[in-house]
Amino acid sequence: MPYVTSLGLFDEKDITLRGLEAVRSSTRVYLETYTSILAIQKSRLEEFYGKTIIPADREMVETESDEILRNAQTEDVALLVVGDPFGATTHTDILLRARALGVPTRVIHNASITNAVGACGLQLYNFGQTVSLVFFTETWRPDSFYDRLRENADLGMHTLVLLDIKVKEQSEENLARGRKIYEPPRYMSIPQAVAQLAEVEGVRQGGVLAPDRTLAIALSRVGGGPDNERIVGGTLAQLREQPPDVFGEPLHSLVIVGRRLHHLEAEYAAAFAVDATLWKEVAQNVYGCNFD
Amino acid sequence: MPYVTSLGLFDEKDITLRGLEAVRSSTRVYLETYTSILAIQKSRLEEFYGKTIIPADREMVETESDEILRNAQTEDVALLVVGDPFGATTHTDILLRARALGVPTRVIHNASITNAVGACGLQLYNFGQTVSLVFFTETWRPDSFYDRLRENADLGMHTLVLLDIKVKEQSEENLARGRKIYEPPRYMSIPQAVAQLAEVEGVRQGGVLAPDRTLAIALSRVGGGPDNERIVGGTLAQLREQPPDVFGEPLHSLVIVGRRLHHLEAEYAAAFAVDATLWKEVAQNVYGCNFD
Repeated sequence: MPYVTSLGLFDEKDITLRGLEAVRSSTRVYLETYTSILAIQKSRLEEFYGKTIIPADREMVETESDEILRNAQTEDVALLVVGDPFGATTHTDILLRARALGVPTRVIHNASITNAVGACGLQLYNFGQTVSLVFFTETWRPDSFYDRLRENADLGMHTLVLLDIKVKEQSEENLARGRKIYEPPRYMSIPQAVAQLAEVEGVRQGGVLAPDRTLAIALSRVGGGPDNERIVGGTLAQLREQPPDVFGEPLHSLVIVGRRLHHLEAEYAAAFAVDATLWKEVAQNVYGCNFD
Repeated sequence: MPYVTSLGLFDEKDITLRGLEAVRSSTRVYLETYTSILAIQKSRLEEFYGKTIIPADREMVETESDEILRNAQTEDVALLVVGDPFGATTHTDILLRARALGVPTRVIHNASITNAVGACGLQLYNFGQTVSLVFFTETWRPDSFYDRLRENADLGMHTLVLLDIKVKEQSEENLARGRKIYEPPRYMSIPQAVAQLAEVEGVRQGGVLAPDRTLAIALSRVGGGPDNERIVGGTLAQLREQPPDVFGEPLHSLVIVGRRLHHLEAEYAAAFAVDATLWKEVAQNVYGCNFD
């Protein structure tokens, strides 16, 4: 049976027992590497599982699904993903392909940032739609996410902003010359994300994001526990000013706090604030939280 | 250290390796039983862990948090929850209490219905805010969820509707007489949920839910794999008419499909439909999906 198995968020111990059984029983184990990453190297997973892992980039998952599914009627095959198995359409594609071949599949769920974001102290039921922020280039600065952000803001909802990662990326020159040379992986930092948001707010002028009046929370390495996880709250201006080592290694996500902010949410999150006094002042004066 | 550890969604094999380590190293293991349940009995977990499990109802988690956290500076203690560790405010309360005592904590994340709902084929980024539907009584028929549902509908977003469960419930008579006699657990069924939605639509008349024109998807025992999980799609009228065994044992959740439905989402979900032809007709004629 083909298994699409989430590894969870952080390291080799975040897999479920059912997921580990699926890996151990599989004749081939693929690791999807283009939508998210673990905090550890593939080699550590291989040692832990006692299995060779085949890296599967987007192109492979999209164009070689029949190879991934080869003999899956009679053998177990595992496609490992970080975060949610349904977070990327290519994972859905492979399930559809299996369905077309008449092969039953099993998805093994696990944590994803979509639910683990609750670690910042904001209630999950106060979140609206999730948006993604991609790296801007000279010629490509897509801002359709701003409409989603505004819809959430109009309702007072919080927004989870997923920050772009680039793995197996070609430079424009290498792409133009057809050279399969790839750049090192890149992960969008919190200050860069905030700078891009500010640029789009400047163009759109929708009043959704104000440097000193919009609260936000940066989450880094969620699920890594006290030694690794970092959660930092502040105004957008404050987060933009932080030196990179405040946030540390990837992956990073950002939450834009909505106007329905409850004072208990604000109090819980104040412990993560760059400056708890300012955090509470903004929560009170701009968001209308009553801390008495 | 106190651990708040999610067990995942279905059975004893859905815990992560890190979660299992936390359970094994803990001197006391509590199981939160009032917001969600696993498909298996506590005794099966106890056997699997080789540990006695202390059931923790809402009252206990709320009023005896110091007992749960006793000696947590020097010993490991685990509070097990089903679904998301931040899904219930009482879990947050215990983390706050530990913070007040100066005890570092660790949350071990896992799957919750908030992300596993992707199994129905709808994209997670097309979901708006999640709502909860409680059992109506003669005197208490709260309908504020309808405002949230309408906000999502106005934006065309899908809505995850969480259905009430009642554990350790007292009858009005036993409550009045102060008798600590509890009713058997109850779980809201899909037809009952749809009936309550119809009643509120009838009162509010907001045009959000139409029996023959609103598509919905019922998810049962998500994460249980091909032998247990059941996903059933249809119009609200169709879901309301289904006999209970179509959905089977708890837990059940319901998704109200929003107007932004993409034709690929509709096609994926059509495989779960009571009547795939009608499903696609409604997706085309009401939701504007183009299947050509």
